[in-house]
Amino acid sequence: MWQLYHFPLCPFSRKVQLALSEKKVPFALRLAYPWEDDEDFHRRNPAGKTPVLYQEERRLTLADSQAICEYFEETESKSPLLPGSAQARAEIRRLVALFDDALYNGVTAPLLHEKMKKRLFLRQSPDSRVLRQATRVLHDHLDYIDFLVDHNRWLGGAQLSLADFAAAAQLSVIDYLDCLEWSDHSSARNWYRVMKSRPSFAPLLTQKMEGLPPPRHYADVNA
Amino acid sequence: MWQLYHFPLCPFSRKVQLALSEKKVPFALRLAYPWEDDEDFHRRNPAGKTPVLYQEERRLTLADSQAICEYFEETESKSPLLPGSAQARAEIRRLVALFDDALYNGVTAPLLHEKMKKRLFLRQSPDSRVLRQATRVLHDHLDYIDFLVDHNRWLGGAQLSLADFAAAAQLSVIDYLDCLEWSDHSSARNWYRVMKSRPSFAPLLTQKMEGLPPPRHYADVNA
Ligand SMILES: N[C@@H](CCC(=O)N[C@@H](CS)C(=O)NCC(=O)O)C(=O)O
Ligand SMILES: N[C@@H](CCC(=O)N[C@@H](CS)C(=O)NCC(=O)O)C(=O)O
Repeated sequence: MWQLYHFPLCPFSRKVQLALSEKKVPFALRLAYPWEDDEDFHRRNPAGKTPVLYQEERRLTLADSQAICEYFEETESKSPLLPGSAQARAEIRRLVALFDDALYNGVTAPLLHEKMKKRLFLRQSPDSRVLRQATRVLHDHLDYIDFLVDHNRWLGGAQLSLADFAAAAQLSVIDYLDCLEWSDHSSARNWYRVMKSRPSFAPLLTQKMEGLPPPRHYADVNA
Repeated sequence: MWQLYHFPLCPFSRKVQLALSEKKVPFALRLAYPWEDDEDFHRRNPAGKTPVLYQEERRLTLADSQAICEYFEETESKSPLLPGSAQARAEIRRLVALFDDALYNGVTAPLLHEKMKKRLFLRQSPDSRVLRQATRVLHDHLDYIDFLVDHNRWLGGAQLSLADFAAAAQLSVIDYLDCLEWSDHSSARNWYRVMKSRPSFAPLLTQKMEGLPPPRHYADVNA
C-alpha cells in the first residue's frame, strides 16, 4: 500500500490526497514535519518537502506533488485529472502552477507561517501587516477564480480537473486558518462549496493539526 | 510560428528554448520584462511571468515553463524530454521541480536580484551577505549534481532528459552573472561542459542582457 508523508496543513499533500481519492488509489497517511529531523523522510526526498509517497514493497518513492499527480494520471486512467486535448491539458497545468506557486507563496505560506508556525513552534504572535497583505493577494485570486468559474463550469475548462483540486487544496488550508473571507466572491464560493462536498474532500475536513483547532464552520460542507 | 516572450536571463525561458530546440520546433524571441507594463504580455499570462509562448494564427497561448514542456512532449515525439517508464518520468519531474524551485529560489533568483535588478534598474550595489548565502546553496546543488552524475550518466537517469535542461538553464544564468564556482565539483563541471556543447545551447550563449555583459569565459564551451 502507498504511504503518504504529509502534515495536516500542507496544501500540496492535500492536493495529492484529493487526486489519489478521486482515482480510488488507497493510501495510508504518515506524519512528517519537514522542518524536523526525520531521517527516513529526508532520505526519500532530498528537497526536504512534503508530500512524499512511497511503497516499500515495490521500492518506489515519488516526491513533488505535481510529479506524483502526473504519475497517477499516466498509470490510472480512472477519473482523469488532465482531461482533454494537449492544449486543454496545458491550460490545466498552467493553472495548477499558478495556484501551487502564486496562491501558495502569496497567501497560504505566509498564513501558515503567521498562524501555524508562530503559534505552535515559535510562540510568537502573528504580524498583522503580513496577514493583511496575504488577504489582499487572496482577494485577487478569488477574483480570478470568479472569472474562471463564470467563463467555464470548472477552473480549467468544461471539466473538473487538477486545477480545481490544486486551488481547493490551498483554499482549504486558508479556511482552516480562518482566513477565507468570501465577501462578494459568490461564484468562487459556490464552486468551493461543490468541491467541499465531494467524497474525496471529506477526509481533509477531519484532519486536525495538533494544538491548532479549525474554526467551527471549517468542516461544514454548507458553509 | 511560435513566439516566445522571454528576457535573456530568465532561466525558465532558457529551459523552454532548450526544449524547443531539441525538438526542432522553430520559434522567434520577443522581449518582455515581467516587471514592466506590457499589456499584451500580461493579458497572455495573468501570472505576469516569463516564459509565455503563443501562436497568433492558431490563437494559442501557453504559459508556465513546465506546462509548455509537457505540451511539446505530448505533441512532438522527437527527442523525448521525459523518456522511460512512468516511474522514470516521475523521477525526472521530481528533479525538474527541484531545480525550478529550490535552485531558482535559493540561488538564481537572489543573484538576479543582486547582480541584475540592482545594477540595471535600482542602481544599488549588491549585498555581499546575500551573494555568500546564494553561493553556499549553489554548492549544495552542485554536490547533488555530482552525486546524480556519478550514479547515472545524466541527472534524471541513464538518458538525457528535461532534468538536465532545467538544471543547465539555471546554471547558465548563474554563470552569466559570474557566480558559477566549480571548486571540486568535477563531475558536475564535466556534465555542464557537455550540456553547453549541445547545438541547442549555442543560442543561449549569444543572448545578452543590455547593460550587463557576461564574463569572458561564459560563451567558451571549453571553460
Ligand atoms: N513543489 C512542491 C512544494 C512542496 C512544499 O513546498 N511543501 C512545504 C510544506 S506545505 C514544505 O515541505 N516546506 C519545507 C519546510 O517547511 O521546511 C510540491 O508541489 O510538492
Ligand atoms: N513556474 C514558472 C516560473 C516563471 C518565473 O518565475 N519567471 C520569472 C522570471 S525568471 C518572472 O517572470 N518573475 C516575475 C517578476 O520578476 O516580476 C515557470 O516555470 O515558468
